[in-house]
Amino acid sequence: MQENIDAAIMVIGNEILSGKTQDCNILFLAQNLSDMGIRLAEVRIVADVEHEIIEAINILRNKYSYVFTTGGIGPTHDDITAAAIAKAFNLKLEQNQKALDIMLERYKMLGKEMAPASYKMADMPVGANLILNNASGAPGFSVGNVYVMAGIPNIMQAMFEWLKPQLKTGVKFTNKTILVEAGESMIAKMLEQLNMQFPELDMGSYPFQDAIGTWRTNLVIRGQLISEIMDATNQLKAKLDEAKIEYKEIE
Amino acid sequence: MQENIDAAIMVIGNEILSGKTQDCNILFLAQNLSDMGIRLAEVRIVADVEHEIIEAINILRNKYSYVFTTGGIGPTHDDITAAAIAKAFNLKLEQNQKALDIMLERYKMLGKEMAPASYKMADMPVGANLILNNASGAPGFSVGNVYVMAGIPNIMQAMFEWLKPQLKTGVKFTNKTILVEAGESMIAKMLEQLNMQFPELDMGSYPFQDAIGTWRTNLVIRGQLISEIMDATNQLKAKLDEAKIEYKEIE
Repeated sequence: MQENIDAAIMVIGNEILSGKTQDCNILFLAQNLSDMGIRLAEVRIVADVEHEIIEAINILRNKYSYVFTTGGIGPTHDDITAAAIAKAFNLKLEQNQKALDIMLERYKMLGKEMAPASYKMADMPVGANLILNNASGAPGFSVGNVYVMAGIPNIMQAMFEWLKPQLKTGVKFTNKTILVEAGESMIAKMLEQLNMQFPELDMGSYPFQDAIGTWRTNLVIRGQLISEIMDATNQLKAKLDEAKIEYKEIE
Repeated sequence: MQENIDAAIMVIGNEILSGKTQDCNILFLAQNLSDMGIRLAEVRIVADVEHEIIEAINILRNKYSYVFTTGGIGPTHDDITAAAIAKAFNLKLEQNQKALDIMLERYKMLGKEMAPASYKMADMPVGANLILNNASGAPGFSVGNVYVMAGIPNIMQAMFEWLKPQLKTGVKFTNKTILVEAGESMIAKMLEQLNMQFPELDMGSYPFQDAIGTWRTNLVIRGQLISEIMDATNQLKAKLDEAKIEYKEIE
């Protein structure tokens, strides 16, 4: 029996809540976790408010195998993630010498001096493990099952790529998508019956209107066992044929 | 003293968690709420799992003025939002006659017959108020301070537009953005000092690399009192001038 590995994402970011910025970190992480067989079970977007971060992190880290946070680890006063994570774990915040050395080395290499404010980015909970990245140099960190990454997409992505080999993985989730030439009410019954036959699979239906206003539906069958997905897909196609509903496999 | 009106969004959607779909409802709602002076305090994305929806909705509705949900109100077996909301409020789920009449009327007008599965979309908690929409015809609903909307973006948007006049509003949030020709570590100190002078304002700094790799930073001052925002902006510009850091106002 495959171990069930699950995860939550916590986006720390007033800029998302204010509507100023479209988040794209969730999609990146969701796709990567899916490919790694890690089930993303929940996402929270919280404000830069210490007690909110602490409360959410303590719930999520006790509930899921992994928690990935993005945002709030820069040098400015509104970057409070490291301090909040330390408090959530009841750990002291200290200057991480290894992180500081990496940052100072990078500035040296660039022939620049590190601004005093940047020293804050080396403050981490005692015992934190670093998450390196080639994009900015300034490391993220992990404590327990909580992985603290930058909010800037290319830096977050570099950190996650670095982190990947350390994470436990499951069997990759596979999606099978059938585009049906009908609204979802036409296929609701057959999809429900099919899902009862294959309770391990997720089956979702996502209707949309095409350019001329006709309703069509993407039926998505998702799971970790390819043979089961193929069986379910074949049965679905037989049911659609029987009901004379047109469709095509798109993925 | 202006009443503080806040809100949470709850996205119910396996398709977002699986990485199959980029959510765009959060951005739309975040921008609209900001314009209405409603502070978006938290977002949760949860799976199509009844107890998860119930637990989250009961926390959020007791914590914030408004909760807006998107997704899970279609006709298929994975559409469980209405039933979960009913349970969260300890209300029975019943066929809402008014909703059903609207749907039947619409099908009649289109000269089509309503599929049996679509009747499910009229099942709502007892006493629910309808949220109408011109895009699909099938209504959303509200119970207490919880507003239950579709996940399909154009339908959700139509529902929210219909809903707007019923919501209490505050003073529109205004953003002032200054693009600074420096990384954020160069302006961290002045921004912190400024925020201490204006504790009512949110001040954020969002660094990014331009096409040739140079770090620049958007400084965002956000609040509800324009005069205060202008004062803070002018002081920030004076500090930047003094430090000989180039900048331009971009919003």
